[in-house]
Amino acid sequence: MQPTDFGAMRCPVARAMAVLGERWSLLILREAFAGTTRFDGFATNLGIAPNILSARLTHLVEHGLFDRVRDGSRHAYRLTDRGRDAFTLYLAIRDWGARHFSGDEGPPTLMIDRATGAPVTAPPPRRADGTPIGPEDVRILPGPGANAAIRRRFGTTEPLEAEPHE
Amino acid sequence: MQPTDFGAMRCPVARAMAVLGERWSLLILREAFAGTTRFDGFATNLGIAPNILSARLTHLVEHGLFDRVRDGSRHAYRLTDRGRDAFTLYLAIRDWGARHFSGDEGPPTLMIDRATGAPVTAPPPRRADGTPIGPEDVRILPGPGANAAIRRRFGTTEPLEAEPHE
Repeated sequence: MQPTDFGAMRCPVARAMAVLGERWSLLILREAFAGTTRFDGFATNLGIAPNILSARLTHLVEHGLFDRVRDGSRHAYRLTDRGRDAFTLYLAIRDWGARHFSGDEGPPTLMIDRATGAPVTAPPPRRADGTPIGPEDVRILPGPGANAAIRRRFGTTEPLEAEPHE
Repeated sequence: MQPTDFGAMRCPVARAMAVLGERWSLLILREAFAGTTRFDGFATNLGIAPNILSARLTHLVEHGLFDRVRDGSRHAYRLTDRGRDAFTLYLAIRDWGARHFSGDEGPPTLMIDRATGAPVTAPPPRRADGTPIGPEDVRILPGPGANAAIRRRFGTTEPLEAEPHE
């Protein structure tokens, strides 16, 4: 049986996980957000075998999270806009991991805002009036890219942005 | 060579990815946030082989994201507080995937707040004054669970919450 191709699914979570689901990917992003750009820097800080690191960086370049650019006699891996835009999800994963899987001693690192010294965390979703939104408060509707199965499942027969039938 | 044990790393991102890094995990959370509780419901909505689903659900129960409870003659999988607390990271992954990997037609689904009808998204990190915080604005400091290597790397010799030496 072939492994499931998550990139071929329509779901944005599946497509994101086709890129992020290999667990080293998030740790490579962690390093990039901490300022690492060189292959050797990633290898040393992550303790990852060079052949695996090379494959993971190539995967992230192919999916548009990093550009591989000349930097003197070597190469540097620079975050693209798409890679930088993963900062919110990186923070959210980091915060959840620190809340639920830290040892008794607490988290090994803290992230602070250089400008203010305040801790930097991913804010939970809230309404305009400031009340929190949890999973029980939401409803899924078909979007403009919905197919027939999604429209059937989520209870309307038309995608939201389509014209109504006669 | 043994596969790397991410759960044994100190980093909260690594520990989170030891649970979430198997890509089906996020799609199982997607289903749970959409209200699915039964094995058959997960199997049908995900199109996942029963043996893989069973292994993935067991993994998520073992890591404390779901409780497996009696529900009539069968079982239900109910999100724990830890599982519900993954809602913010789920949203952040969903939003990023929809922004960067939707087809030309747009995302297949929309998530709205039942109370207001407004779209529900993961907010990016901001300062108290509302200005956005990006990866270039942050600094990593050793936390209370830092070991010597982390203290060396992030430039202070003492964890932040330790008493100063004489």
